[in-house]
Amino acid sequence: MIVVLKPGLSKKDESAVLKEIRRLGYRPHVIRGVARTVIGAIGDERTHQSLEALGNWPQVEQVMPVQKRYKFVSREAHRADSTVPVREHLIGGKKLHVMAGPCSVEDERQLLTTAEAVRQAGATILRGGAFKPRTSPYEFQGLGEKGLKLLAKARRVTGLAIITELLAEAHVELVAEYTDIIQIGTRNAQNFQLLIAAAKTGKPILLKRGLAMKIEEWLLAGEYVLANENPHLMFCERGIRTFETYTRNTLDLAAIPIIKQESHLPIVIDPSQGAGRADLVIAMCKGAVAMGADALLIEVHPNPAEAWSDGVQQVSLDQFARLMQELRPFIAAAGRE
Amino acid sequence: MIVVLKPGLSKKDESAVLKEIRRLGYRPHVIRGVARTVIGAIGDERTHQSLEALGNWPQVEQVMPVQKRYKFVSREAHRADSTVPVREHLIGGKKLHVMAGPCSVEDERQLLTTAEAVRQAGATILRGGAFKPRTSPYEFQGLGEKGLKLLAKARRVTGLAIITELLAEAHVELVAEYTDIIQIGTRNAQNFQLLIAAAKTGKPILLKRGLAMKIEEWLLAGEYVLANENPHLMFCERGIRTFETYTRNTLDLAAIPIIKQESHLPIVIDPSQGAGRADLVIAMCKGAVAMGADALLIEVHPNPAEAWSDGVQQVSLDQFARLMQELRPFIAAAGRE
Amino acid sequence: MIVVLKPGLSKKDESAVLKEIRRLGYRPHVIRGVARTVIGAIGDERTHQSLEALGNWPQVEQVMPVQKRYKFVSREAHRADSTVPVREHLIGGKKLHVMAGPCSVEDERQLLTTAEAVRQAGATILRGGAFKPRTSPYEFQGLGEKGLKLLAKARRVTGLAIITELLAEAHVELVAEYTDIIQIGTRNAQNFQLLIAAAKTGKPILLKRGLAMKIEEWLLAGEYVLANENPHLMFCERGIRTFETYTRNTLDLAAIPIIKQESHLPIVIDPSQGAGRADLVIAMCKGAVAMGADALLIEVHPNPAEAWSDGVQQVSLDQFARLMQELRPFIAAAGRE
Amino acid sequence: MIVVLKPGLSKKDESAVLKEIRRLGYRPHVIRGVARTVIGAIGDERTHQSLEALGNWPQVEQVMPVQKRYKFVSREAHRADSTVPVREHLIGGKKLHVMAGPCSVEDERQLLTTAEAVRQAGATILRGGAFKPRTSPYEFQGLGEKGLKLLAKARRVTGLAIITELLAEAHVELVAEYTDIIQIGTRNAQNFQLLIAAAKTGKPILLKRGLAMKIEEWLLAGEYVLANENPHLMFCERGIRTFETYTRNTLDLAAIPIIKQESHLPIVIDPSQGAGRADLVIAMCKGAVAMGADALLIEVHPNPAEAWSDGVQQVSLDQFARLMQELRPFIAAAGRE
Repeated sequence: MIVVLKPGLSKKDESAVLKEIRRLGYRPHVIRGVARTVIGAIGDERTHQSLEALGNWPQVEQVMPVQKRYKFVSREAHRADSTVPVREHLIGGKKLHVMAGPCSVEDERQLLTTAEAVRQAGATILRGGAFKPRTSPYEFQGLGEKGLKLLAKARRVTGLAIITELLAEAHVELVAEYTDIIQIGTRNAQNFQLLIAAAKTGKPILLKRGLAMKIEEWLLAGEYVLANENPHLMFCERGIRTFETYTRNTLDLAAIPIIKQESHLPIVIDPSQGAGRADLVIAMCKGAVAMGADALLIEVHPNPAEAWSDGVQQVSLDQFARLMQELRPFIAAAGRE
Repeated sequence: MIVVLKPGLSKKDESAVLKEIRRLGYRPHVIRGVARTVIGAIGDERTHQSLEALGNWPQVEQVMPVQKRYKFVSREAHRADSTVPVREHLIGGKKLHVMAGPCSVEDERQLLTTAEAVRQAGATILRGGAFKPRTSPYEFQGLGEKGLKLLAKARRVTGLAIITELLAEAHVELVAEYTDIIQIGTRNAQNFQLLIAAAKTGKPILLKRGLAMKIEEWLLAGEYVLANENPHLMFCERGIRTFETYTRNTLDLAAIPIIKQESHLPIVIDPSQGAGRADLVIAMCKGAVAMGADALLIEVHPNPAEAWSDGVQQVSLDQFARLMQELRPFIAAAGRE
Repeated sequence: MIVVLKPGLSKKDESAVLKEIRRLGYRPHVIRGVARTVIGAIGDERTHQSLEALGNWPQVEQVMPVQKRYKFVSREAHRADSTVPVREHLIGGKKLHVMAGPCSVEDERQLLTTAEAVRQAGATILRGGAFKPRTSPYEFQGLGEKGLKLLAKARRVTGLAIITELLAEAHVELVAEYTDIIQIGTRNAQNFQLLIAAAKTGKPILLKRGLAMKIEEWLLAGEYVLANENPHLMFCERGIRTFETYTRNTLDLAAIPIIKQESHLPIVIDPSQGAGRADLVIAMCKGAVAMGADALLIEVHPNPAEAWSDGVQQVSLDQFARLMQELRPFIAAAGRE
Repeated sequence: MIVVLKPGLSKKDESAVLKEIRRLGYRPHVIRGVARTVIGAIGDERTHQSLEALGNWPQVEQVMPVQKRYKFVSREAHRADSTVPVREHLIGGKKLHVMAGPCSVEDERQLLTTAEAVRQAGATILRGGAFKPRTSPYEFQGLGEKGLKLLAKARRVTGLAIITELLAEAHVELVAEYTDIIQIGTRNAQNFQLLIAAAKTGKPILLKRGLAMKIEEWLLAGEYVLANENPHLMFCERGIRTFETYTRNTLDLAAIPIIKQESHLPIVIDPSQGAGRADLVIAMCKGAVAMGADALLIEVHPNPAEAWSDGVQQVSLDQFARLMQELRPFIAAAGRE
């Protein structure tokens, strides 16, 4: 930690700060600058008690952490890229994976039609919500276990792996029984109890970025998974909340090179949530692939205008097939399969 | 709903939209404007299936909801101000309540010292975290049930009511057994399963605003509580996330008059989280009181620089006593007690 | 400056950084921590060439400035509060000033009616736009010089001082000839050439905060005025842009205690722009006064629904009189006149 | 416009609103819904006086514009893509253009070295700041006319076209005399007087997006250029301000398909400002090209660590050559040259 002192302190005031730094288990190192005196507090910031509260002292102008707070998710901890095994697939390897399917599982026909179509177009993983977090209590909340059973059936029929969202600790066992990947949604990205419970199932976890989550906080939320001994984590960028209203969210594609730089874990892009508009999904997929995404998560519906949730951002089966076609040259340019 | 059509549609394209609107259970009403044709779709937007997905149709430029999506929390549903009973107190009435105490419960001495001091200064409710949601898994996570027991002891000794955060469905019964008010934190503000579980205890609930939550979404999260038959809800503004870095968050004090306008429920302000700096807390309390807040939630610690969490934003016992003193004229000016 | 090195550097790589720091005129001071090596670069950050570019070197993880970049606007430069003289008034002293008037000057009758009414209600300064920055080229752009002449006439008739916006260098002389305070609007808050030109007139300047301006950047924009030898500067908070859509902007009232802490200059609050809704203006004024604002800037119109610009956020003459009445107890509570 | 009335209005209150709508030159059309009465106000929203102020009436809940406010920049006004001629080049056509060069022009050697290197790597336009808008008055403000002369010399020597920023009305003639493209920077994106002055030179204009500018506002700022009879406009996305601090700004790549959808004008991406970090520039260029950008604007410096401004975000000559190499397959995949 770096502790910046206010200008013009007495010797006594300065000593009190130094004493406190030592009491907290750090070794202080004083630098007298031209306009400010700065103390380097030497010690492991992750395990020692934080010096942050010193910021509250009248003598102190600012406390600045130096060390990164995440460990297991960090590129420093693991130099090579990690891959996450999902049935016969590896996410984070040479092959770009596409996870596609409806926002909500609605009925067998809707799900099987979609699953078959996305498989034919080249997707390897089927997405579909069985439990839906909805802004309003009056909106469709998902089919629950019935939805999970339909997903399992679609897997049997098509051979696709499946991903579905977990939104309550009470459902952990149930969801883990059916799904191949547990999705933690944006609203629960800092629901740490849920993250721990999900981690303990040992299943691969896809952690969406929270609407107002800094990259550092996202990495730390991921740290909850790895610190609970589950190494199978993927980060998923799906747009952050900004002042812009043309799109529902602002898809922060810079998250791709940043996650690659800071972490060894795979990064997935969800352009459907990111844009909130089907007409922007294709362009965003191209950008994501070009920038190095390991997988895409795309909402597809046989008839978006009749979808029970988020119809406006789901692409149709035809649009999806065209999208997969148009992506090919970019996948090749990115050196992926 | 208002459906705005793109310019230059053929009769056939327009008919298809009208047909779909009827199929979804709305009655369409066409207005031909100078530059656009607009359709008013008549029907209850809360119970009918949403028209939103029409936004996906090539014929449609925009779909705009007209009706408010919340019902029970709405001022339309209940003209008079509602009060929330907490032991012998009523929150939302003439008396301004102050909830004060440490960020985290650390030990008996810390808690009882604080409780006694805040009681003497005029607080009526003791706050203190027993389960702490922490950005990093390596930070102090709270004393758990031991913390709850200490809060109960402080209540016995001082007569203060207590408020503490619930952060996992698994703890609902345990927390409800001890606390007088259940706090739902900012990271769980859209953890709807937790909200429902908390609502079902029948305990008063204080719902903090999420970091990136629009007022409308906050009201809808509150709707989950009332729709689950618990009328004892308070909203708590604690700062939203913006680009500004001088303060940890941006306290949106406009939320006070807005909640008063849109809802009948009490509004509480948390200046400690809002500012993230103890030196701004007094000014923010004054503003909150002047603007009509029903209660304040303030972090107080006997020695902030030694706090186990968030020391930088906790005020000392002396500062708290001074704060309560300085607030008096503003409480009087606001016509409160 | 603090330069944080990446872990595991060779001696040679580290030396190169030290050499560069010396070359740039700083004295390096090395601290070897547990997980990172940190270099304190001693020297005046304001006058020496910036070390920031070192952040680009492969050896460097982070470069953190220690010193504040503003000088004349800083509280360190001038311990006591500064006041700004405007005709017979002093802004920033014991008296709270209210600047009120229409968004745009429309005609003599509108302006004089408003001026007379706000004077009677207690305002001391008349606001009114003669040159209007409008988002669309098809909106009313102000009366120009004719508007300035009407403002001067209103000053003659009522004795109120006047404030009006300057939005082009080409108008500097013209506007300075008529107005008592030059307003720099939010869209021009970092139009540094305009700031310099305005500063050189010697007139008092009211500098609105830009929509996306951090407090530090705002102080630095103010530094342009003082560095050009005009000490008569007021800061004016008018709301920043966030994701919230209920209000047009988010009024950041924390700016009041922050500006008081960081600077010696007066702080003015504009609740009309801040809320963008007349019905929230009264509550926001109360909060601003309680938190220590030195002046308020309020849009008032004889018939807001007929205003040529921003009608939705202007209060009527009656509402303004009531507002001034309701503010009285809060002004007293804040120890102001 | 759509005017939503509050529920439960008397006949008389409703009539008053209808009367006002007629008085403002619109034809009202009433739709009685289940929970709300809605009025469609028929008329041209761009030329008639705005109904917005009705939002202030006690009878009115909301006023929603239906029509787009921009005209000449709109895709509706011009179905085909427009190209902007810059010397022998066309921007917005099949060829992807790269504008590259230093943040600031520093001296002849620095500029000519860079110009020659970027030309060889494939750039067609040389960028370089002669007048620099700097957050602090104590930072390097550019060489002024001397910088312009150096740019002209570099053009003579290399044959590259040039682009440089205009930041004051007072410099319009001077800058226009030298440059091929006038750049309007992010801080002046809503400095409408500057936009008008720049438009009147007839030179091609590159309009950067303001830090807090919605797409709609950006299009309207562009409308100022076309409405002043200069059709040669390019939009340039360079990142918006959000809460994320890892990058200096958040590059909103969705702006590419959105501008293509809403407008016929070219879209340029500036990844250097967008990221504020040289190490992210390559990935962002790839994303921009894949998503359909017409040109890139990249900061390049022979020795970024010695740059007089923004060193941290400039790439070196080598990095730039590599970048151009790595972009090739993506340019081909996007069907560009």
